[in-house]
Amino acid sequence: MAKTADRYFKVDPWSVIEEGFDPAYSRVSESVFSLANETMGIRGCFDEGGSMDSLRGAYVNGVYDLEELPRSYRGIIDHTHFMIPAADWLMTKIRLDGEKLDLGRVRFRDFRRELNMRTGTLTRQFVWEAASGKELRLSFLRFTDMVHRERAYQRITLEALNFTGEIAVSSGLSFDTVHEGYRRCFWQETYAETEADRIMLQARTTRSGQEVFAGAILDMPGGFIAEKDGKAVHGRGTIRLEQGKPCTVEKRVVLLFNGNGGESLRQQGKNALAECGRISAEEALAAQRSYWEAYWQISDIRIEASGAETEEAAEAEQQGIHFCSFQLAQTYNGGSTRHNIGAKGMTGEAYNGHAFWDTEACCLPFYLFTRPEAAKNLLLFRYNTLPMALERAKMLDCKGACYPIATLNGDEACSLWQHASLQLQPGTAVAYGIWHYVHLTGDDGFLWRYGAEMLLQIARFLASRAARGGLTGKYGFYGVMGPDEFHMMVNNNAYTNYMGKRTLEYAARILQRMRAEQPEAWATLAEKTALGPEEPDTWMNMAEEMYIPCAENGLIEQHDGFFDLPHTEINDVPVSDFPLYEHWSYDRIYRTDMIKQPDVLMILYLYNSSFSREAKRVNYEYYEPRTIHESSLSPAIHSVLAAELDRMEDAVRFFGHATRLDLDNYNRNTREGLHVTSIAMAWANIVYGFAGLRSDGDMLRFAPRIPDRWKRLSFSLVCRGRVIRVRMEKAGTMFSLAEGAPVSIRVYDREYCLGTEELTVPCMI
Amino acid sequence: MAKTADRYFKVDPWSVIEEGFDPAYSRVSESVFSLANETMGIRGCFDEGGSMDSLRGAYVNGVYDLEELPRSYRGIIDHTHFMIPAADWLMTKIRLDGEKLDLGRVRFRDFRRELNMRTGTLTRQFVWEAASGKELRLSFLRFTDMVHRERAYQRITLEALNFTGEIAVSSGLSFDTVHEGYRRCFWQETYAETEADRIMLQARTTRSGQEVFAGAILDMPGGFIAEKDGKAVHGRGTIRLEQGKPCTVEKRVVLLFNGNGGESLRQQGKNALAECGRISAEEALAAQRSYWEAYWQISDIRIEASGAETEEAAEAEQQGIHFCSFQLAQTYNGGSTRHNIGAKGMTGEAYNGHAFWDTEACCLPFYLFTRPEAAKNLLLFRYNTLPMALERAKMLDCKGACYPIATLNGDEACSLWQHASLQLQPGTAVAYGIWHYVHLTGDDGFLWRYGAEMLLQIARFLASRAARGGLTGKYGFYGVMGPDEFHMMVNNNAYTNYMGKRTLEYAARILQRMRAEQPEAWATLAEKTALGPEEPDTWMNMAEEMYIPCAENGLIEQHDGFFDLPHTEINDVPVSDFPLYEHWSYDRIYRTDMIKQPDVLMILYLYNSSFSREAKRVNYEYYEPRTIHESSLSPAIHSVLAAELDRMEDAVRFFGHATRLDLDNYNRNTREGLHVTSIAMAWANIVYGFAGLRSDGDMLRFAPRIPDRWKRLSFSLVCRGRVIRVRMEKAGTMFSLAEGAPVSIRVYDREYCLGTEELTVPCMI
Repeated sequence: MAKTADRYFKVDPWSVIEEGFDPAYSRVSESVFSLANETMGIRGCFDEGGSMDSLRGAYVNGVYDLEELPRSYRGIIDHTHFMIPAADWLMTKIRLDGEKLDLGRVRFRDFRRELNMRTGTLTRQFVWEAASGKELRLSFLRFTDMVHRERAYQRITLEALNFTGEIAVSSGLSFDTVHEGYRRCFWQETYAETEADRIMLQARTTRSGQEVFAGAILDMPGGFIAEKDGKAVHGRGTIRLEQGKPCTVEKRVVLLFNGNGGESLRQQGKNALAECGRISAEEALAAQRSYWEAYWQISDIRIEASGAETEEAAEAEQQGIHFCSFQLAQTYNGGSTRHNIGAKGMTGEAYNGHAFWDTEACCLPFYLFTRPEAAKNLLLFRYNTLPMALERAKMLDCKGACYPIATLNGDEACSLWQHASLQLQPGTAVAYGIWHYVHLTGDDGFLWRYGAEMLLQIARFLASRAARGGLTGKYGFYGVMGPDEFHMMVNNNAYTNYMGKRTLEYAARILQRMRAEQPEAWATLAEKTALGPEEPDTWMNMAEEMYIPCAENGLIEQHDGFFDLPHTEINDVPVSDFPLYEHWSYDRIYRTDMIKQPDVLMILYLYNSSFSREAKRVNYEYYEPRTIHESSLSPAIHSVLAAELDRMEDAVRFFGHATRLDLDNYNRNTREGLHVTSIAMAWANIVYGFAGLRSDGDMLRFAPRIPDRWKRLSFSLVCRGRVIRVRMEKAGTMFSLAEGAPVSIRVYDREYCLGTEELTVPCMI
Repeated sequence: MAKTADRYFKVDPWSVIEEGFDPAYSRVSESVFSLANETMGIRGCFDEGGSMDSLRGAYVNGVYDLEELPRSYRGIIDHTHFMIPAADWLMTKIRLDGEKLDLGRVRFRDFRRELNMRTGTLTRQFVWEAASGKELRLSFLRFTDMVHRERAYQRITLEALNFTGEIAVSSGLSFDTVHEGYRRCFWQETYAETEADRIMLQARTTRSGQEVFAGAILDMPGGFIAEKDGKAVHGRGTIRLEQGKPCTVEKRVVLLFNGNGGESLRQQGKNALAECGRISAEEALAAQRSYWEAYWQISDIRIEASGAETEEAAEAEQQGIHFCSFQLAQTYNGGSTRHNIGAKGMTGEAYNGHAFWDTEACCLPFYLFTRPEAAKNLLLFRYNTLPMALERAKMLDCKGACYPIATLNGDEACSLWQHASLQLQPGTAVAYGIWHYVHLTGDDGFLWRYGAEMLLQIARFLASRAARGGLTGKYGFYGVMGPDEFHMMVNNNAYTNYMGKRTLEYAARILQRMRAEQPEAWATLAEKTALGPEEPDTWMNMAEEMYIPCAENGLIEQHDGFFDLPHTEINDVPVSDFPLYEHWSYDRIYRTDMIKQPDVLMILYLYNSSFSREAKRVNYEYYEPRTIHESSLSPAIHSVLAAELDRMEDAVRFFGHATRLDLDNYNRNTREGLHVTSIAMAWANIVYGFAGLRSDGDMLRFAPRIPDRWKRLSFSLVCRGRVIRVRMEKAGTMFSLAEGAPVSIRVYDREYCLGTEELTVPCMI
């Protein structure tokens, strides 16, 4: 694997630390130092701005605008939507004797920036050496409030080190925010107001007509004068600094977004701001600390090195896994059924804030085992957007529901037809997610009320899209792009066929069960969807006759003709060729046996217990050397399978990549934002990989394999009201129940009852 | 075949006649009544404009502008170029007592429009019944001068039928012409001048910086006042009409386009206009008549019906083939090596005036056998644009030269990457064209000076694009789109592989021969192109090891996996679904065994003598029922093969479609312009189809098969200084030499020497 780590940040288990500022890493740092609280997100950019390379991005979840696309063929979307930067609430300007604070230009020392993952705060300090000789220590603190999700805080502390005098500070809110790709502002101001201690603004997006309220209570020593400047409002003040006496400027911010807009939003915003004013920033910070403390109680994964020589590596991995867990929880925590998980969360504008099928295929297990109600809400997002998926299927001359490959609001937003029209994995991933959720939670209420309808429409879509092969005589999907996006317009992609088969089967079974167990609900659903009495049987029949191109030894051909593709020796691809999409002619990517990410292996990952160890070995050995991992989801899935196959060297190597993907900028594009969904795979890498969890059987199964360099690995899992703690060591693994009733689990190949006593299972591998 | 004729025009062997004006056919008529003289073209729109549906288009060959495209992946073009409407030289306004002549609004009778293919003129008459009760007969005549290609003429005759009085006429030139797709004018005026009897204008395109001079000598009874109006100049006059006395307004036009622009173009334009003024329109018209008379001497194809009951059909076919020949000769006649043949010539803006690989694959034979120097000039166009093809190959990470799939100036202009990057047929078609030209003319001078260099670079491109299959171990082209554009990103497309094989072979052989016969020229070429000594051998080896997927019975699989594609019964596709690109979801087109146009059959057409009759039968029987003919080139190729296979019913049916494609609007899109390149295939349909000409052997071979409904079919062929006249009748075929030395020909399977005596060969089929 040609990709390598590019380590820049200091390693610490609970913090990401930057000591000294390297402008070359400016955007990488901005991404890594991102904060969010599910309803808003902000990149780690400097409060005071500056002339360094920067993507200044403050986002509100669910806020987007629209753009028309050139008219093209039928089934190809004619407009798209994308996340836009919303209110910039950090906006600060600082001038000392007319010299503007700009770390791209001024002299400074002792720069330190730290993201503290135990408190969810970002701090920054440095000493500004002004041209006049005056020295000023500045400290910045910010956080997005995890308790009151509409709130955010900013604190700036100024300390004159060698002088007493005045400094000009302005702090404000601005909708004059520019989308980097489109190079324009999408906001029209609809309201602005100031009071003695607060400033308020409201603005509407140009085409989507969404409205956001932004308000801030400004606490500035000596007060401020409010000034309007375009689509921004600033509070401008002059602060008298006494040498050696720190002095703070504080901003308590409220960002409110809802569908109503106008007057009503304004009033809600004012109320929310008043509410916010009732507690101090310090009190909010204390609540924030408690929140994260509780979070880590459940979600912490602890790694301990086996000895001095592996300590550094283990600590880096510990930091990596904390960072992944932290960023994932910031991005989505189950607070809403109207949002999904953008591939880059709210940490950048690449991928336009869109969510992909990664949500169900990769992120869902993290939530299922830490916060099941969040998993449910993610599935309800798909239920809420079912009407758009029905429309999309019609555009494609199909029936049922076709879920989008990229979306913020449920509409297909991917302007590349080869992805939007050929990738059928969003639908099968939703079906898989429903199955996994119901399987683990037993939430049949969800199944009958929401799940069955989605399954029905997804199955209907698949049935209308499948066709019988002219030679095989079996069903298959023709003209598709599987998970491996380096091959398109292929036939009988094994992943698509297999997932289609399982989805059709599952949908048919569920509807048959529903008819028997819930006749009334079934009748209502059948009427609503005009379900033909023969439809589930047809699906079952199609599933039985689905073509799966599997050789006798278990080797599955990725798609028809894959084995004949010209070979590319992936180790011969020079590092300078990455990312391939930028350096290779577009068509060249598609005509070799090099694959972007697991495709056949993805089947073995998702339906693990349906395949023999030998089949896994054969397929791993064939596909792993052909995989270039241009998808950030790829290494973790390989790591999980490698661990299962006792290829611990591979497993550890892929894990390092997965868990520090952004911290070490493996893919050389962290500057664009964090790989939020692949971050979820780092969690799965440990739990499914090293602990060997399998959740597709009748009970949870573990097969712990601890890497040599770790002494201990511990984590917790939430499942059906229980909290199971797992502590893996060289000699064996300890299981205990922190909460809930006794439960049967399988470890390696034996069944145990986990009760009040700690259970120790010796290592068997 | 679901497509049917929509007959609107009156049938006449030498004219296309419209009696009465149906606004629903307005644009179809405009296309059909197009005139051109290779350097300029004009749609058959009304001189006076009007409110009816219309695409007002006057074009100058080679005049285009540029447009940037959204930035995309490497190898995908970032700007395109397209033909734009140039100077509107018809522009006329007529008012009678304040009522404006507009056939979309006024009352009129006795409307008749006629394209006379013996004189190359378009005339139109009608009687205007003004609201005042006044009646005015108007007659319009126009032609684009085939002798002096920079000239065009317009004559308007006005006759007051029931009154004496004044009429206001204005006649002018305008660059205020709007491209329909882009909805804007691409011209900036650079010069305007008027003299007593003439008006002159010059304008420059916005981005390509091309400049066109337009001048007109206006002959208006009573004179005119010149007026400037935006980017137009008009001569405005008032004409006194005496009842019953016709009165004419005449405009002699010069359009000049060259690379210099500015002052020098202006002076050339003024000189050319002065030169044009030296002869009257009547004299120019006489010269035009002589030109077409001479043309038909060589290029006429005569069809005579076998009896009264087939007369109507035969006459329609006669009109069709005259129309095809006429339009082709208007569009390209060999006058330039800087122009190619746009798929729609200069008859509309669809396809942007671009030339495709149709030129070499379909049009070249027409020129080879009627005007060989035109064929040479078409190949020199490719030589002149070789530098752009070399650049394009680099963009695609390949070596050598990649000819564009769509172009006006040699640059790739197709913004759809799936065509521009995956279709390799332009290069192999150029190589085929070189072979065919040299084979038929023996022009080795061309070969050594131009052909060898093109062949070398085309072969080099193919060698860098081919790869060895992982299973076959043979060479093939992966990730391509063959002639059948309903399948893309396929592997081992038989056409691409076979054409690649033959091209590599031919290039290697020619370079080996050149080294032996023309050592100096070879050395120069080898140095210029850095030809590796082993390259031709490598190509020969690749050609030998090229994978051609052919079954024992001769059935060739169109591409890997074609036989397994789900079947579509083409007769079940409702007529309302055509064109499929508009009515079917884009991806749906690509996943069945329905094909757009011949692909395997195209091989059998181009390399006819390399395949057995049995192979042709097997492939025809397999592919014909799967072909939907969404390409206008398709029916004629099927007709040729059907004739060879003695399926005369098929042959005649396909011929009807091919020869009257636009006259009967078979594809329902003639409104966008004529299918100029497929028009060439109508000629081939007769000569290669019914006369059974084959030109890929050591001598010309004929296998005449006259359709039942024809009594006689006669035509001439030019070949190596000879003019061979062929007269096919039921009993046999007569060959005679109108010019040149005796020559050996093969008829059916016997060889004959054709000398001064007429040769009669009895029908043998």
